[in-house]
Amino acid sequence: MSATVYLSAPDMIRIVQRLGLSACLAGIAERISRDFRRWNEFDKSPRVASHSEHGVIELMPIADATEFAFKYVNGHPKNTRAGLPTVMAFGVLADVATGAPRLLSELTLTTAIRTAAMSAVAARALARPGSRSMALIGNGAQSEFQALAFRDLLGIRELRLFDTDPAATAKLVANLAGQGLALRVCGSTAEAVRGADIVTTVTADKSNAVILSPEMVEPGMHINAVGGDCPGKTELHPGVLSRSAVFVEFEPQTRAEGEIQQMPADFAVTELWQVLEGSRPGRSDAAQVTVFDSVGFALEDYSALAFMRDAAARLGIGDVIELVPQPADPKDLFGVLRQQQPRTGVPAQRREAALPVS
Amino acid sequence: MSATVYLSAPDMIRIVQRLGLSACLAGIAERISRDFRRWNEFDKSPRVASHSEHGVIELMPIADATEFAFKYVNGHPKNTRAGLPTVMAFGVLADVATGAPRLLSELTLTTAIRTAAMSAVAARALARPGSRSMALIGNGAQSEFQALAFRDLLGIRELRLFDTDPAATAKLVANLAGQGLALRVCGSTAEAVRGADIVTTVTADKSNAVILSPEMVEPGMHINAVGGDCPGKTELHPGVLSRSAVFVEFEPQTRAEGEIQQMPADFAVTELWQVLEGSRPGRSDAAQVTVFDSVGFALEDYSALAFMRDAAARLGIGDVIELVPQPADPKDLFGVLRQQQPRTGVPAQRREAALPVS
Repeated sequence: MSATVYLSAPDMIRIVQRLGLSACLAGIAERISRDFRRWNEFDKSPRVASHSEHGVIELMPIADATEFAFKYVNGHPKNTRAGLPTVMAFGVLADVATGAPRLLSELTLTTAIRTAAMSAVAARALARPGSRSMALIGNGAQSEFQALAFRDLLGIRELRLFDTDPAATAKLVANLAGQGLALRVCGSTAEAVRGADIVTTVTADKSNAVILSPEMVEPGMHINAVGGDCPGKTELHPGVLSRSAVFVEFEPQTRAEGEIQQMPADFAVTELWQVLEGSRPGRSDAAQVTVFDSVGFALEDYSALAFMRDAAARLGIGDVIELVPQPADPKDLFGVLRQQQPRTGVPAQRREAALPVS
Repeated sequence: MSATVYLSAPDMIRIVQRLGLSACLAGIAERISRDFRRWNEFDKSPRVASHSEHGVIELMPIADATEFAFKYVNGHPKNTRAGLPTVMAFGVLADVATGAPRLLSELTLTTAIRTAAMSAVAARALARPGSRSMALIGNGAQSEFQALAFRDLLGIRELRLFDTDPAATAKLVANLAGQGLALRVCGSTAEAVRGADIVTTVTADKSNAVILSPEMVEPGMHINAVGGDCPGKTELHPGVLSRSAVFVEFEPQTRAEGEIQQMPADFAVTELWQVLEGSRPGRSDAAQVTVFDSVGFALEDYSALAFMRDAAARLGIGDVIELVPQPADPKDLFGVLRQQQPRTGVPAQRREAALPVS
């Protein structure tokens, strides 16, 4: 009656392996584009953040008339020293009509894919047509996903890489070998940025860092600023913003969390959905500098969850779990305490036992 | 490294069966009392609600210096017509230091227990000593839990029952037979309330109803108002509030959601934690009418989750699941796409296989 499908991290890895990462990037980009064009159908709010000295834990809810979604996600820059990812996430889809949770899914891997897909959707609307080279500053857990999204969806063919941790760059180079990208390891951000069509910053420090300063920025560049995403965590010098046209996901959230937290409250920005639906212009000319001040918005997670739910159903991957009790009479919750419970009730049903897998 | 314990609804039923409902009510009441007395150690915010014509879906986060908790919960009064509970919930405990989710648990059954435990904690502080009779208005899914919490923790011996649905009352009478409570089925709210020491209202309609009107209220009564818990959903006539001393959980949330949403913004209330820690008085005298305007606050869910986590560990109940991927190198999330995934990876580990169960 109110069964919930559970997609574990191993399930999600298998989904991405079966479909291929490129198909996942393209499919989620397509869903994001479609969902952003129906922006006004969603009940939106800034995410709720709980900050500590170690990092941040956030809940990101959103709903349209039929589905409610939320993501749990953390950001703990020092986690890698303890062998943990800096970002861990999971999410839920529920029915608006009944409140029943229908999908519980890992979102750590999926967040990396959706963030890269979102960056590519924005860059398709904002970067100069024919962009071929991208500087990738920050070569950690999200970097390969950004690289491949821009290869597949923008036509990027050359990457200029920099990270303060050379081992991170070496890992990225090894992971992307033979993937149709020319890789150039650089000794500094300035060297990586010089002459690039697109600059992607995806660093993890929880501080007001200056990764990109005004003298590095060249006319016509598109800056995909991903790593500045909570209060006190920025990557761009304010001078970069003041000379650029700045585009955001959901303005009330980005004012608090994005690069523009450094700017006056009336600093002009454009919400990206307006560009995607055609009601506001994107880039004005080939010399303009554009910035996508990306912090990550709940709608992108809804799009990604819906894509992965559909993919899992097609592939027959996932488990049916009993997250909610099933009283015989819904007014008699007390009655469940008389039910005999099997000792091996989890998972209630393994999909692959029931569904044919091609 | 970042394994998560999963407690399904069947797991939770078995925990309550093994410990006994009375022990769960007492244990959660004890934890709530303790946690409310360290109120200022928690990072608190009103819950985030998404309203629709059908009901509401809420996220309720809270954190102290070491643990972050949240609950997902809905309220859909018409669900019972479709065979679904009106309230369904689950929750999570996570480490503040790393953001890793440590426990994912059903909270539908647990919410009923914690709500009743919270009501009893408040009534112990506010009702007249020696209270023996309670009117119970609304005999749905939460009613047995309220009845038994007040029996165990207050010494209530007589219940006066009313519900607009006689089948709900019949179910409650059947469930509570032989439990040491004198049960009197009444034909109206007024009849049930007359002469009672405590009045508990726990109805489900999402409307500004008048379950309790001023002429029903007698000197010295304690009113435990549970069912009015979101904007536009109240149970008490404002005249009941204006003649009473009103106590709340977390004032900023209750102003929007509780019975006092009907009152001016400066209507005086007392946060219960102050009474529990002894810094503010509770009931002034035997004739005063006291109201606990309960809407349900995230701290109660944290207390309940922590109690159930400890109980599950003691009993060896629950599964270890892989909600978060485990890259060999935490900066190499991309590398998990090269991992071979077992097709039967869920649950990663069944606790009872490893732990002796008495």
